[in-house]
Amino acid sequence: VGVTGSIGEFGRIRRWFAPLTEGAPGALDLTDDAALLGGDQVVTVDAIVEGVHFRAGDPPELVARKLLRVNLSDVAAMGARPEHWLLAMALPSHCDDAWVERFAAGLAADQAEYGIRLLGGDSTATPGPITLAVTMIGRLGVAGAVKRAGARPGDLVFVTGTIGDAALGLVAAGRALDLGFAARQFLEERYLLPRPRVSVGWRLAGLAHAMLDVSDGLVGDLEHMAEVSGVAAEIDAAAIPLSDAAAEALAEAPGLIETVLTGGDDYELLFAAPSEAAPALRAIAAETGVPITPIGRIREGKGVRALDRDGGVLDFATTGYRHV
Amino acid sequence: VGVTGSIGEFGRIRRWFAPLTEGAPGALDLTDDAALLGGDQVVTVDAIVEGVHFRAGDPPELVARKLLRVNLSDVAAMGARPEHWLLAMALPSHCDDAWVERFAAGLAADQAEYGIRLLGGDSTATPGPITLAVTMIGRLGVAGAVKRAGARPGDLVFVTGTIGDAALGLVAAGRALDLGFAARQFLEERYLLPRPRVSVGWRLAGLAHAMLDVSDGLVGDLEHMAEVSGVAAEIDAAAIPLSDAAAEALAEAPGLIETVLTGGDDYELLFAAPSEAAPALRAIAAETGVPITPIGRIREGKGVRALDRDGGVLDFATTGYRHV
Repeated sequence: VGVTGSIGEFGRIRRWFAPLTEGAPGALDLTDDAALLGGDQVVTVDAIVEGVHFRAGDPPELVARKLLRVNLSDVAAMGARPEHWLLAMALPSHCDDAWVERFAAGLAADQAEYGIRLLGGDSTATPGPITLAVTMIGRLGVAGAVKRAGARPGDLVFVTGTIGDAALGLVAAGRALDLGFAARQFLEERYLLPRPRVSVGWRLAGLAHAMLDVSDGLVGDLEHMAEVSGVAAEIDAAAIPLSDAAAEALAEAPGLIETVLTGGDDYELLFAAPSEAAPALRAIAAETGVPITPIGRIREGKGVRALDRDGGVLDFATTGYRHV
Repeated sequence: VGVTGSIGEFGRIRRWFAPLTEGAPGALDLTDDAALLGGDQVVTVDAIVEGVHFRAGDPPELVARKLLRVNLSDVAAMGARPEHWLLAMALPSHCDDAWVERFAAGLAADQAEYGIRLLGGDSTATPGPITLAVTMIGRLGVAGAVKRAGARPGDLVFVTGTIGDAALGLVAAGRALDLGFAARQFLEERYLLPRPRVSVGWRLAGLAHAMLDVSDGLVGDLEHMAEVSGVAAEIDAAAIPLSDAAAEALAEAPGLIETVLTGGDDYELLFAAPSEAAPALRAIAAETGVPITPIGRIREGKGVRALDRDGGVLDFATTGYRHV
């Protein structure tokens, strides 16, 4: 969301907010998915706004679950188990008791699903759109946090689940794709409701050298990791795990591979780990029922390249990470 | 801010949000100033909205400081020292880089003043008003937290600083009072910029039996404390510590004693402590430069009574705590 002449969101964070973390190494210069709090906790905050992150009139249960899940994903991406959360709500007067009851029902459903508990909150009126912020606190195991920095040459690059569904769901919602009903519905649901990999994240602590969740697009997020790790990364486009619905969409419109690689909001985990970790990763996939797929490798150098089947380099107009 | 036919903010919290804290005793049933996080931390979140908690066009530095201070006050009221905080911002496009720079300067000033550090944050665009939420994390000493519940018959009731300035500042801003320039300016500043008692709060751990910060009005907040403690409280109106400016206002309009007793936003600490604590409290007042004044006592029973000089009971139309 650009502001003419502005240094942009990242510029603002670097110039004016990162200096406020001086003396707080746990803030990780505001470059990671969550901050470190004391020895064994992580903490993150994310806000969503009606008309920006969800639509006016969206079911309150869905809004509640999306709100929790974007934050759950950040905690999982640090290798931590989410435990507690706090809620700040600014609600316009059209959010009546029935709205709040349904919203709380959505929160309760995801609390049960992810084993988290509300710890505190604040509620205020607003003359504007529904604005909701969640602070999520998670606990680390003895292996500590997995940061974005730490990928090493020789590591393999892995992702959980399937990539591109959410971005294709947005395309499908625009009716720009000739898809079967089931495929369309699957992709749209992936866009509407993130599926954070909470069961996988903490199990990767001690195995992954670097990790983040895919929220800005696979290539863009991998660039984040490569940059802070001081390495280059290479992915094989043909190795990207696709859902059946995404495969159907790509068969229909092969050019959508760019959407798959650069679209955001997958909320899958993207991590670098040594090849020796492969047996442990297979065990985690079996235990959690979440596929874990090697899609590339870390090299010396800088930047991210996506290769086609023949080893040629794919070139994209956008890498999905420029939030100017 | 009423919604016709609604069960109100407190009703919503009790019915739909408090049940989400089941299994999290640190949430204190969402009835305290902050929640307990692990053994020695407290955490709280408070949001402020343009047009509700501050005015469109207010100086960004002032907005920043108010935002931090309402949260600092909550941490102080638990007997904890604030250490870290997180920021969620929803900013409309009219908040340009210059606005953000001034906002961050206000944050930096209060970080230095209160010895806190930014740990993480989130920034998003909004089509609505500026909406800001801060999560503040504080550390407890060995004496643990001071909760709202815990006041005992025989305890004395104390307040820090002076009472009523913010509420009188609001009256003065409406030009309904014939006051000198200095007094008017002092009261308005107290309304615009809270002065949280961060230096006093943590020193009261182990001394105070119950504590909160005065944000809903002295009588109303004392009623909160009495109710959750299962006791009655009695305050001597003549003992309430007043600033010179407030005294000038009361000399002009004696009926404003009701505003002093029931107006909100003082952000002073209100606590119950045994009379044996008096010497330690005098030492804390001397050390911090913040006056601590006994204003009443805790009794068996329920409810709060304010007494005039002759021991007669003052009767108020509102006790300042009904947020319907």
